[in-house]
Amino acid sequence: MNTFGRNFRVQVFGESHGEAIGVVVDGVKAGIPLCKEDFMNDILRRKSGAMGTTPRIESDEPEILSGVFEGHTTGAPIAIIFRNLNARSGDYNALKDVPRPGHADYAASVKFEGFNDPRGGGHFSGRLTLPLVAAGVIAKKQFCSSVGSGLEIKAELKEIGGETNKDRWAALLENTAHEGDSLGGIVECLIAGIPAGLGEPFFDSVESLISHAVFSIPGVRGIEFGDGFAASRMKGSEHNDVFPLTKNGAGGINGGITNGAPIVFRVAFKPTSSIAKTQKTLNVKTGEAVDLNVPGRHDTCFALRTPVIVEAVAAIVLANLI
Amino acid sequence: MNTFGRNFRVQVFGESHGEAIGVVVDGVKAGIPLCKEDFMNDILRRKSGAMGTTPRIESDEPEILSGVFEGHTTGAPIAIIFRNLNARSGDYNALKDVPRPGHADYAASVKFEGFNDPRGGGHFSGRLTLPLVAAGVIAKKQFCSSVGSGLEIKAELKEIGGETNKDRWAALLENTAHEGDSLGGIVECLIAGIPAGLGEPFFDSVESLISHAVFSIPGVRGIEFGDGFAASRMKGSEHNDVFPLTKNGAGGINGGITNGAPIVFRVAFKPTSSIAKTQKTLNVKTGEAVDLNVPGRHDTCFALRTPVIVEAVAAIVLANLI
Amino acid sequence: MNTFGRNFRVQVFGESHGEAIGVVVDGVKAGIPLCKEDFMNDILRRKSGAMGTTPRIESDEPEILSGVFEGHTTGAPIAIIFRNLNARSGDYNALKDVPRPGHADYAASVKFEGFNDPRGGGHFSGRLTLPLVAAGVIAKKQFCSSVGSGLEIKAELKEIGGETNKDRWAALLENTAHEGDSLGGIVECLIAGIPAGLGEPFFDSVESLISHAVFSIPGVRGIEFGDGFAASRMKGSEHNDVFPLTKNGAGGINGGITNGAPIVFRVAFKPTSSIAKTQKTLNVKTGEAVDLNVPGRHDTCFALRTPVIVEAVAAIVLANLI
Amino acid sequence: MNTFGRNFRVQVFGESHGEAIGVVVDGVKAGIPLCKEDFMNDILRRKSGAMGTTPRIESDEPEILSGVFEGHTTGAPIAIIFRNLNARSGDYNALKDVPRPGHADYAASVKFEGFNDPRGGGHFSGRLTLPLVAAGVIAKKQFCSSVGSGLEIKAELKEIGGETNKDRWAALLENTAHEGDSLGGIVECLIAGIPAGLGEPFFDSVESLISHAVFSIPGVRGIEFGDGFAASRMKGSEHNDVFPLTKNGAGGINGGITNGAPIVFRVAFKPTSSIAKTQKTLNVKTGEAVDLNVPGRHDTCFALRTPVIVEAVAAIVLANLI
Repeated sequence: MNTFGRNFRVQVFGESHGEAIGVVVDGVKAGIPLCKEDFMNDILRRKSGAMGTTPRIESDEPEILSGVFEGHTTGAPIAIIFRNLNARSGDYNALKDVPRPGHADYAASVKFEGFNDPRGGGHFSGRLTLPLVAAGVIAKKQFCSSVGSGLEIKAELKEIGGETNKDRWAALLENTAHEGDSLGGIVECLIAGIPAGLGEPFFDSVESLISHAVFSIPGVRGIEFGDGFAASRMKGSEHNDVFPLTKNGAGGINGGITNGAPIVFRVAFKPTSSIAKTQKTLNVKTGEAVDLNVPGRHDTCFALRTPVIVEAVAAIVLANLI
Repeated sequence: MNTFGRNFRVQVFGESHGEAIGVVVDGVKAGIPLCKEDFMNDILRRKSGAMGTTPRIESDEPEILSGVFEGHTTGAPIAIIFRNLNARSGDYNALKDVPRPGHADYAASVKFEGFNDPRGGGHFSGRLTLPLVAAGVIAKKQFCSSVGSGLEIKAELKEIGGETNKDRWAALLENTAHEGDSLGGIVECLIAGIPAGLGEPFFDSVESLISHAVFSIPGVRGIEFGDGFAASRMKGSEHNDVFPLTKNGAGGINGGITNGAPIVFRVAFKPTSSIAKTQKTLNVKTGEAVDLNVPGRHDTCFALRTPVIVEAVAAIVLANLI
Repeated sequence: MNTFGRNFRVQVFGESHGEAIGVVVDGVKAGIPLCKEDFMNDILRRKSGAMGTTPRIESDEPEILSGVFEGHTTGAPIAIIFRNLNARSGDYNALKDVPRPGHADYAASVKFEGFNDPRGGGHFSGRLTLPLVAAGVIAKKQFCSSVGSGLEIKAELKEIGGETNKDRWAALLENTAHEGDSLGGIVECLIAGIPAGLGEPFFDSVESLISHAVFSIPGVRGIEFGDGFAASRMKGSEHNDVFPLTKNGAGGINGGITNGAPIVFRVAFKPTSSIAKTQKTLNVKTGEAVDLNVPGRHDTCFALRTPVIVEAVAAIVLANLI
Repeated sequence: MNTFGRNFRVQVFGESHGEAIGVVVDGVKAGIPLCKEDFMNDILRRKSGAMGTTPRIESDEPEILSGVFEGHTTGAPIAIIFRNLNARSGDYNALKDVPRPGHADYAASVKFEGFNDPRGGGHFSGRLTLPLVAAGVIAKKQFCSSVGSGLEIKAELKEIGGETNKDRWAALLENTAHEGDSLGGIVECLIAGIPAGLGEPFFDSVESLISHAVFSIPGVRGIEFGDGFAASRMKGSEHNDVFPLTKNGAGGINGGITNGAPIVFRVAFKPTSSIAKTQKTLNVKTGEAVDLNVPGRHDTCFALRTPVIVEAVAAIVLANLI
């Protein structure tokens, strides 16, 4: 299923090289000002074209089909679509029986018995994060309209390929692209200005919902809150946040419930799976080994484009907590 | 909400020092052999009493109220309760206005406007993982009855306080207990013998569901799959799993769907929040600083008791994928 | 699945002749006064023993296991069980291969491959409406605590066996019991004091939710709102409710949303399936025709006991609308 | 929320006079042949233009945006939109403060604080049943692909304005149109060729799910299964279906589970709310009484167009039961 949320429900659809991709957002309050322009800032932050990202420029023009009337949300579901205009389907036809390493090609083909759309990863494409970003824009507005304007959701790329010094990123990206290889990265997200008492014990803990949503972003390998994995190497007296809070080892969450401190989490993104280097793979029909050159133009480090996506899914979770 | 799952639905209830804790499992197939004894092995693995765990021995006797007839599941919901017999409520009454560092006391009190049961963490207590373990026993049986007997779910504690050499754990635990402090740890879970093609794209990705369930376990700070956070520091040519699979950097999952390789994930547990050392905290009513000595008998490292809980929630997810 | 509701979630479990039946209610607000006595009035209204109902007196003593502390709800799930004490299992053992007409025996046996508990209808027994009534008590309190005290939910039996004159019911019941036969009836429910604007368009229309919940009551054959089936025989100019509302042909609902007028609906209950008369049926194992005398003591008209159940499911729906 | 279903999930969106209306169907199996032409037969059955229906011909051209590749479903969500081309918005602007009797105008305006799209009923328009019909086409295919080709879903209009003799319908419709009034009707739906054992006890009983879905169709006032309301006036010995089944008073369902006999239910539709006659209503802003002439061209009896819609929602339920 491609749906998330109980109160603020997000349904994504579409394939990378199909007619259109899109999202239906249900559970939006009536009366929130919303127009096409509201989406452009976040959509631009996800766009390719900058250093380290693919030169393929996609059409990212949102078309609002429903749920908005005279510049305000109506309370009815908001459907938004993005037409696919710049698809080069020819690139992918040869790959049908030759799964690309790191991609969903093989697993999807087993699951859908070969009927999945293979062009550009089809429904598994990172392009599907575009409707997520659109849903995130609405979610941010809904959350703010409920709890006031103090909300701040800010995700930033903190590491590329293990390098934390941003001054060295340009050279690292250039060298890696030159090698025909790719890089991963770590995004940190901070959510400030939220009230204490959000979330539910157990299965709807704030961490459960955020991690659920974050792992829907293609390419995520891990998530940690507050002190994260490092907490497992600390003593209780070091890790515990003493009241009044002067540190935030719990990442703003106790027992699954917000404690009023900022929510802090980090997300590990893998290196881009599609690389220019020749890779070994298997022709799953014939069983013979194959040298594979993945066609198309790819991000050297797609993590560069992900902070706004992480913010979007975090906002979608927040909009479900109120 | 305290419910998880679409096909195999788990509802937990209860408080640490109330009448009883328990679970209702709905969506169980008819005809699976099930009796009280089937639960005892996993329940024993979670039990306290061993080195590094609390000497407080709880009553962990399951009482099956429904859904089983003549030794087999009937297809109707299975309700299981555990009476609370060994509760020392007196220990906790003094704490009402003095939240224990690292616990849900403060956040819960805000959320539930002071009406939450404060005794032993109430509904937020780690004791609630006992019904999870019971549900996991049923989940393992259901999954095996559907996909055959090849399933292996095995979770192991790999680190305590950063120490990976198990020979040194006894001394580390003893010293830490002597200091009145506590330790965290890392559990690794491996799930082998599962078919390719399980899971859904996007919001019901296998990682989304497993992380959702895992973060419902009290005290989890992070989760990673396959190469995990290390993947963010690898190049694409290093991280990609080339077909036929000789490594498993993706942890058995591509695009949210199982690829037939074992699912591998690691979970970071924080150190036990309740420690013998005196801690600073706040009287939230008067606003004055307080020296707090948390009463009760506690695990030095509760992570020792968690592998079977991690297995249980993983099994609950698997039972939802079929 | 045996669960209902998004915000106020009800999970029932148990079998007529098993250990216990019960309910877990999740999504209850913290701070609502609640004790055992609060349940007794509605439980008594459902009880048997009066004219036209079975002389079998069941144990209807609620045991609250969780979610209540010092006389108030805590916000955690409330689990309530009822032990089964007066079960005569011997009555039912002979019926395993001989489905009782009108009962779920055959359909359940196909669905659960013969593993369902056959004693007294097992999980399909009307006894499972007892936990529904308990959940209804909580639902009424939750709704009132949110929208104020003006709420009135009142269900009444309007017809027995087509007879609307209540003075003639006693004789009708006596005669029918004497024939070894049974009667159905029609219950009307009126919900006043609710605000306009509750409900959702389309799939969560108030009628959708109420009918969904009402058909979970065993023995319901139909439901109608406002003018109901008669509306299909009226002209638009007769049926339309003109503003300001002087009639209520829509039953208080337009487009699935409450309009502020009382919600009015009627529920048709079939005659009790178990009758004293000998009935023809089939031995499903041997295929031969059988004369069946259904053992046990039964209601002549179980509809007599249903008004409080109809109120309960209506209240459960209302608690989900706020 | 505008979503229905657990396994086969349907999300509708759109407004009568907005850009487009549509549906996303999630949970469709891969490999089902599907193309635009497959929708045309059912869409035509819903179309207006025939005797007794509005002469307004809407654009009912489906545009498949996703989930279909090379003529087969891919397993990814299927999004289908219908552009609104023939909208005369001017007709409705005057109505903003003057709710039309029988319509959702007033209730919607309260719920959405005046931000709902008022043109043609907006999201509450009967036009939204067009995407339901499209979803029904997919549901029928999915159900048949799972249980074989024996399925027959057949809904028929049985009564108009209480008249069961079809020969007299033309005159009745003509006279009523001439009076500027409208008529209701009763649709009977029969579902044959389904296996025994579908459905769940209690809240997911087949009746619960079908009634839930049926009441999402605008204008439904009642539903009954098998003997329906008449069952409440029968004795147990008359109503009970004796095995082997020679009658079908239960409508093919016992205890919420199919028994192998055809499912039979009847749906009562109200008369069309919009009539040519002048009606009294209220200006909700000024509080003064108003004479209202509802603009636009309307069905004399919209029930004429509903059998295919009833089939669609029944098929959507069936696709959720497998």
